[in-house]
Amino acid sequence: MTDLNTKTAILLLSCRDQKGLVFKITNFIYKIGGNIIDLDEHVDIPESMFFVRVAFELNNSKLSEKELPSEFESLGNEFNANWEIHLEEKKQKVAIFVSKYDHCLLDILWRHSLNEFNIHIEAIVSNHRTLKNLADQYNLPFYHFEITKENKVETEIKQFEVLQKHSIDTIVLARYMQILSPGFVEKFPNKIINIHHSFLPAFIGGNPYKQAYERGVKIIGATSHYVTNELDEGPIIAQDIINISHNDSLKDLIRKGRDLERLVLARALLLHSQYKILVDGKKTIIF
Amino acid sequence: MTDLNTKTAILLLSCRDQKGLVFKITNFIYKIGGNIIDLDEHVDIPESMFFVRVAFELNNSKLSEKELPSEFESLGNEFNANWEIHLEEKKQKVAIFVSKYDHCLLDILWRHSLNEFNIHIEAIVSNHRTLKNLADQYNLPFYHFEITKENKVETEIKQFEVLQKHSIDTIVLARYMQILSPGFVEKFPNKIINIHHSFLPAFIGGNPYKQAYERGVKIIGATSHYVTNELDEGPIIAQDIINISHNDSLKDLIRKGRDLERLVLARALLLHSQYKILVDGKKTIIF
Amino acid sequence: MTDLNTKTAILLLSCRDQKGLVFKITNFIYKIGGNIIDLDEHVDIPESMFFVRVAFELNNSKLSEKELPSEFESLGNEFNANWEIHLEEKKQKVAIFVSKYDHCLLDILWRHSLNEFNIHIEAIVSNHRTLKNLADQYNLPFYHFEITKENKVETEIKQFEVLQKHSIDTIVLARYMQILSPGFVEKFPNKIINIHHSFLPAFIGGNPYKQAYERGVKIIGATSHYVTNELDEGPIIAQDIINISHNDSLKDLIRKGRDLERLVLARALLLHSQYKILVDGKKTIIF
Amino acid sequence: MTDLNTKTAILLLSCRDQKGLVFKITNFIYKIGGNIIDLDEHVDIPESMFFVRVAFELNNSKLSEKELPSEFESLGNEFNANWEIHLEEKKQKVAIFVSKYDHCLLDILWRHSLNEFNIHIEAIVSNHRTLKNLADQYNLPFYHFEITKENKVETEIKQFEVLQKHSIDTIVLARYMQILSPGFVEKFPNKIINIHHSFLPAFIGGNPYKQAYERGVKIIGATSHYVTNELDEGPIIAQDIINISHNDSLKDLIRKGRDLERLVLARALLLHSQYKILVDGKKTIIF
Repeated sequence: MTDLNTKTAILLLSCRDQKGLVFKITNFIYKIGGNIIDLDEHVDIPESMFFVRVAFELNNSKLSEKELPSEFESLGNEFNANWEIHLEEKKQKVAIFVSKYDHCLLDILWRHSLNEFNIHIEAIVSNHRTLKNLADQYNLPFYHFEITKENKVETEIKQFEVLQKHSIDTIVLARYMQILSPGFVEKFPNKIINIHHSFLPAFIGGNPYKQAYERGVKIIGATSHYVTNELDEGPIIAQDIINISHNDSLKDLIRKGRDLERLVLARALLLHSQYKILVDGKKTIIF
Repeated sequence: MTDLNTKTAILLLSCRDQKGLVFKITNFIYKIGGNIIDLDEHVDIPESMFFVRVAFELNNSKLSEKELPSEFESLGNEFNANWEIHLEEKKQKVAIFVSKYDHCLLDILWRHSLNEFNIHIEAIVSNHRTLKNLADQYNLPFYHFEITKENKVETEIKQFEVLQKHSIDTIVLARYMQILSPGFVEKFPNKIINIHHSFLPAFIGGNPYKQAYERGVKIIGATSHYVTNELDEGPIIAQDIINISHNDSLKDLIRKGRDLERLVLARALLLHSQYKILVDGKKTIIF
Repeated sequence: MTDLNTKTAILLLSCRDQKGLVFKITNFIYKIGGNIIDLDEHVDIPESMFFVRVAFELNNSKLSEKELPSEFESLGNEFNANWEIHLEEKKQKVAIFVSKYDHCLLDILWRHSLNEFNIHIEAIVSNHRTLKNLADQYNLPFYHFEITKENKVETEIKQFEVLQKHSIDTIVLARYMQILSPGFVEKFPNKIINIHHSFLPAFIGGNPYKQAYERGVKIIGATSHYVTNELDEGPIIAQDIINISHNDSLKDLIRKGRDLERLVLARALLLHSQYKILVDGKKTIIF
Repeated sequence: MTDLNTKTAILLLSCRDQKGLVFKITNFIYKIGGNIIDLDEHVDIPESMFFVRVAFELNNSKLSEKELPSEFESLGNEFNANWEIHLEEKKQKVAIFVSKYDHCLLDILWRHSLNEFNIHIEAIVSNHRTLKNLADQYNLPFYHFEITKENKVETEIKQFEVLQKHSIDTIVLARYMQILSPGFVEKFPNKIINIHHSFLPAFIGGNPYKQAYERGVKIIGATSHYVTNELDEGPIIAQDIINISHNDSLKDLIRKGRDLERLVLARALLLHSQYKILVDGKKTIIF
């Protein structure tokens, strides 16, 4: 049992907008001895929806880790809200799925070595052996599953077993070149983060750099989003762009794009690890 | 007397950080019948300072416009806070100071014609007659004061009389090529917005584009800040940049810089007009 | 007859890549007494195509304005090239097509008043009377044509007569809310510049800001391109973007987008007016 | 002796502007059987200086590697020019100087593993042992020299011996926390590339992130430049920026800055390795 004293808790909540929401939530925190260190709130006025993220320190609280959510439950029910409470120190357990490209994986592992993210990386999962060396360098378990059309379903079952074994909360697709099946995706709603190498919704699908090169755009981009069962249509977390010109060959686009991809994916993972993202239908609220 | 019903009020408050601040503030709003539509809060942890902006609708409130601040006063005193409450519909009265360049003035007047800002523009004040035509086109009073070394102090007195006559809240220096005297500046703390045509603190003082050109930088910038009595050292509100290259002559820098200047100044004025800025010593909190 | 002495000429040329192109072109310029002040060259290696822009001063040349292109003709034929020679001082004659939005038009007129572009603005053409005032302020002829489904073809004939009367070289669609007919477009190949209020190819067609808002993107853009007979598919000249967040309403997107639109359109017109654009199929080379 | 056939040569040249320069240079290339694949030219009009970079293929040339520069010599003398000719395939030999931070080094090594640069990395030189592991992973010689006030001069002599042993052309200071002595710097004019973690000329010297944090800027930057004997005053090669807000702690600035530093340093090294930089006094021409 974790003692809540000196701990920071994070409440994420969304519900229909109504009077007194912030007051009632902050009243709750005040009564249990919490001190708010960060509060962000958003009202989607056209949809009349309320979203809030509160980070609060529990310095003299008498609640246990288990009691905190159960204490909040009646308020959550009163608001008819979707909500979660996390202890900041409890790091999410992450599996990274990769294929052959190393740039996103290397970047995440390097950032992790500097404690940029609030996560534990538990496993690297791949359909190729190419990046095993990199996993080894960082002393991380590497699971290789060869994937064919025929064995895809059963392989996903094996992958899922690995994820369960490691109690994985979050999956990062770090240029994983396989499309996950609907059943798999549904097991991790808003928990699978993908990087797409274009400025979505431009250039959905395969070979976006080639598409961009042929269209003659002057800017390319990368987009990180939660995976849903519509290809490249999940809620967007982060996007960024870089200028290109007629001097840039397709190879230059790919080179410049690598920088975008790793930065945008890392930014999305950072936000996710800090519980700063609330999903609002096809959109995200980034606090 | 303004009826507060269906009005939106904005509270800006800063004080030493302490437990229960958000709860007590939102409790106050709840009790007077307010509905929070936007709340942003920031704790400067190294300084242990608390900053908050709350926008709340007063749909069924029985308070009058005058009673609202006096009701809040005891809470403000309890926190030993700096605070202000504004009604969103009460637009700030703005005077724009200019010299000969038209780009910042034209941009503000055009944006104003589209209601981008929550302000009334009351007067254009200038040390040259160059931009009188532009003021005329927008039917705005234009006050011309020739300024010499000798008459500077008495001219500022006359300018101040104009400002008082129009009950000016906010002064925008839209490329006004005169340095205001300390006495004048002190009358409008955090109420005078300047645009400096460099990426401060680089190239403080005169001819920043020439300085940038000679230094061979690859990026130029513009900075909007509140005016204090230290030249170009006031709290920064907004900054932006644009890439340049060896192909850009000094004339090109000036041309590109014009776009930056008007955009950055407009951004700062928008934030100021929406009461989204809190000053924290030499810095700003932008909510 | 313009005396070429002290004039600057600009050669734009594209042809199949072959040995000696730059040598032969610069040899020609040397022999006629020209001094190159700017030369940019690009080889599209996959397509084996050569593109060049040369600006050269003719200080002691004995050629007349007419003789210059006819002197170059044999070289152009030898290369089997597309080429044009312009005198920099000969400004292109521009017509601006508008509907109701003023921001792009105002921006172009203001920049023009500062001589940012190398053009003569000859006429404003509109399907609404809304912006007549603005044309009047700048003393420009304003042609109003009400356009209905029924009269579209004959109206375009009348518009074309206006363009001929003013010897128009270049048409700028400054948020003109009509689709030009194929016959009209074909009369001005790579001479009609449009601004589309999205980051093409994302959000082709109507209401791109609404599309962007609903998709929940984190960045919006604007794209300036030459008009072809495929909607929003012409060669892209310039693009730019701005960050948005969940805090931005659809109205905010439109406001932020206005800044993008006018900047990107002005950038494209500047490049066009300086003869810095070569079209390469669906792409542009921007020198 | 390298056979020049199928080789690409790069000429970098600067001299006083005069008529016929491009013609004479391209004539030379034509006569020796070269085919120009890229030519960029710049005239600094205020200074009347001419700069050019030409890349040309030598498919049927009868010249040897040695003969190429000696053939050009008379032309170089005629122009009284500074010039160099390089074979693209002859990679520059690079030493990377580091202290304790790994991000710039790791980034360069990773990019190098993907052949992004046209270089050979020959040695890692450090005043700490911290990054030896990283050098080992990439099988690169690591030279450790403890540096004190007392031994600085003699250490630089030893470092220089290492550089000579490896025939080093270019030194990259990848967050090397020592100031090189004037004598050392003079041995490598425009051959030492540094990364400074600020948007120069803002925040020259130590602790730029702390300076930026305390000043309350809204944008931070990084600057890569050639090292001269004036601290942080050398010719700027590349700069980039990132937005920050009041939410960013000093630690966040450092984190965000790491991304800037490695990207900007890599961009500078790429340009340098492709012979795309000409130095013009305190400025650079980037082709």
